[in-house]
Amino acid sequence: MMTAYEFSADDHRFMAEALRLAERGRLTADPNPAVGCVIVQDGEIVGRGFHRAAGEAHAEVHALREAGVRARGATAYVTLEPCSHHGRTPPCAEALIEAGIGEVIAAMVDPFPANAGNGLDRLARAGIKVRSGLMEPAARALNAGFVSRFERGRPWVRVKLAISQDGRTTGPDGRSKWITGAAARQDVQRWRGRASAILTGIGTVLADDPHLNLRLPGIDRWPLRVVVDSRARLTERARMLQLNGRVLVATAGTVSPWQRDGVEWLALPAPDGQRVDLAALMGALSERAVNEVHVEAGPILAGALIEAGLVDELLVYQAPVLLGEGSPMLALPGMENFDDRHHLELLDARRIGADWRFRYRL
Amino acid sequence: MMTAYEFSADDHRFMAEALRLAERGRLTADPNPAVGCVIVQDGEIVGRGFHRAAGEAHAEVHALREAGVRARGATAYVTLEPCSHHGRTPPCAEALIEAGIGEVIAAMVDPFPANAGNGLDRLARAGIKVRSGLMEPAARALNAGFVSRFERGRPWVRVKLAISQDGRTTGPDGRSKWITGAAARQDVQRWRGRASAILTGIGTVLADDPHLNLRLPGIDRWPLRVVVDSRARLTERARMLQLNGRVLVATAGTVSPWQRDGVEWLALPAPDGQRVDLAALMGALSERAVNEVHVEAGPILAGALIEAGLVDELLVYQAPVLLGEGSPMLALPGMENFDDRHHLELLDARRIGADWRFRYRL
Repeated sequence: MMTAYEFSADDHRFMAEALRLAERGRLTADPNPAVGCVIVQDGEIVGRGFHRAAGEAHAEVHALREAGVRARGATAYVTLEPCSHHGRTPPCAEALIEAGIGEVIAAMVDPFPANAGNGLDRLARAGIKVRSGLMEPAARALNAGFVSRFERGRPWVRVKLAISQDGRTTGPDGRSKWITGAAARQDVQRWRGRASAILTGIGTVLADDPHLNLRLPGIDRWPLRVVVDSRARLTERARMLQLNGRVLVATAGTVSPWQRDGVEWLALPAPDGQRVDLAALMGALSERAVNEVHVEAGPILAGALIEAGLVDELLVYQAPVLLGEGSPMLALPGMENFDDRHHLELLDARRIGADWRFRYRL
Repeated sequence: MMTAYEFSADDHRFMAEALRLAERGRLTADPNPAVGCVIVQDGEIVGRGFHRAAGEAHAEVHALREAGVRARGATAYVTLEPCSHHGRTPPCAEALIEAGIGEVIAAMVDPFPANAGNGLDRLARAGIKVRSGLMEPAARALNAGFVSRFERGRPWVRVKLAISQDGRTTGPDGRSKWITGAAARQDVQRWRGRASAILTGIGTVLADDPHLNLRLPGIDRWPLRVVVDSRARLTERARMLQLNGRVLVATAGTVSPWQRDGVEWLALPAPDGQRVDLAALMGALSERAVNEVHVEAGPILAGALIEAGLVDELLVYQAPVLLGEGSPMLALPGMENFDDRHHLELLDARRIGADWRFRYRL
């Protein structure tokens, strides 16, 4: 699997199509990765598929069904190594072999330990020509959370912030509804939608009492909602508990004051006896199959996550307003001087309604 | 002059060319307005001109010279009403009449009281067809400061700010060199270059000791440098005094502790006995033929100018860094709650090097 293969322009074109297909499962596949597949016979796409949801057929199976007998001798482009293990569905490697596929090109090897190269090995042993690594960066970015969970033992963490042009997240009176416009807030829904978990702090819950649910037409998935709540102050009246879906409450060792269906209390050892060990929390989320974490928190928790080195991306919605003496965007008490400043790598900047959205890699 | 004229697509095309020509005097014409002129004979441009610097020939004169005898019966497109008064050069209206121009189209009437319609009247009385108002918004924006000085009795004020993504103008240690990159800092030079005056506060002078000069190749103009210095703390050792060019120091009634060539002390009546009356200062600058003021000040002075309603534009350079607990972008103590927020109208957003520049109308 270590060989660097050469790929043609056509190979790129077909993998790009497979990646586009994969995107269609982006809001529903979780905790599985989003995967796309195209089957090409004589330069023509004869089968397309993507993985919609856990428990349903994988991308390869959909594509093979559409291709039918034309799969024989064809090339399959898949955005992730086909599975070789029996999960909730039979292994795709066997399905590709049975269909008589002549060649498989994968964008990347599966980081899932039960597969992790076995799928491609199984295909190669069946006499199928196998190559991998085509457009791998795009394939990894597509499933950044899934990859992170197995490679780093923690989820991919994206912190969303809505600020004014002068870097404030509230007005002088603490109010923040709404800094950004309707289009930006709808865009946030799509980022929530691709996350396995939405994380906030008890301060935000007590101040705003948010639902932290998805409001996306046609999507009925419930991301896990996570509350960082050192001293177990969350009450049973919180709005987020009146909805479907699971909630995890992480405390700094404090025992749970009450129990309720769908709510998991997680008392994490607190090194300082005060604050939730955020790295330990991320490990625990990874164990619970959380790929991407979408953070909507106040400046203290968001800043603490950054200072703990746990943030992979910042998603900043910036409105054309001045808010004066409100809350800062981030509390970063660990930064002492100008040379300590964090440099951000801009991934994307665009206007959304009257606001601008900046997406950064930290 | 109140008639609304109809203009053709060709009229727009020729006036656009005149506006482009005018731009070439943008950094040198001050305190005069930037003006461009094209002369069109039979659908063809036969003369072009722009006003480079006070005391030199006006745009019309350059264009007439190039056109020569082809000016006879031609149409002159000018971005500002031709002058009718003897200033440092003879009146352009007379030159156009003498050249036998058949028609004059002006983008706007001259706001300068000694002209203000007289130029167009003089042309009309000489039998020349006269129309005005073509692309007037662009012409007004080109000379926003010149227009503001005569229409509002105060300059056009643009506040430049360099901030981090989290809205800070310094690190936690107060340092700010450099938040933005070299390309952004060079861009600032061009905005300084089109200003009549560069204004700062004594706090910035004592902390950074800036030169506040122009570093633009080929430009030897010296904008007036203005220091808001309530208690007359500016010392003769300040770097800005070691250069050519004039400096104006505005105090809150405090008398000048020293005198020096090129330095004017202006003791303004201070209603609160504490702070410089910023509106009075702007009036005084207007009387000194200051069209555009470029402000590079700290958050207190910049915020005070905004709260006094004296700021027309914000020019925000935003770097992809996080600075933590540094100085805020603006101190706006008069803003008490979320509903008081200032809404900004975005004029332009663009990437400059690794930074973004946002230009807003306040």
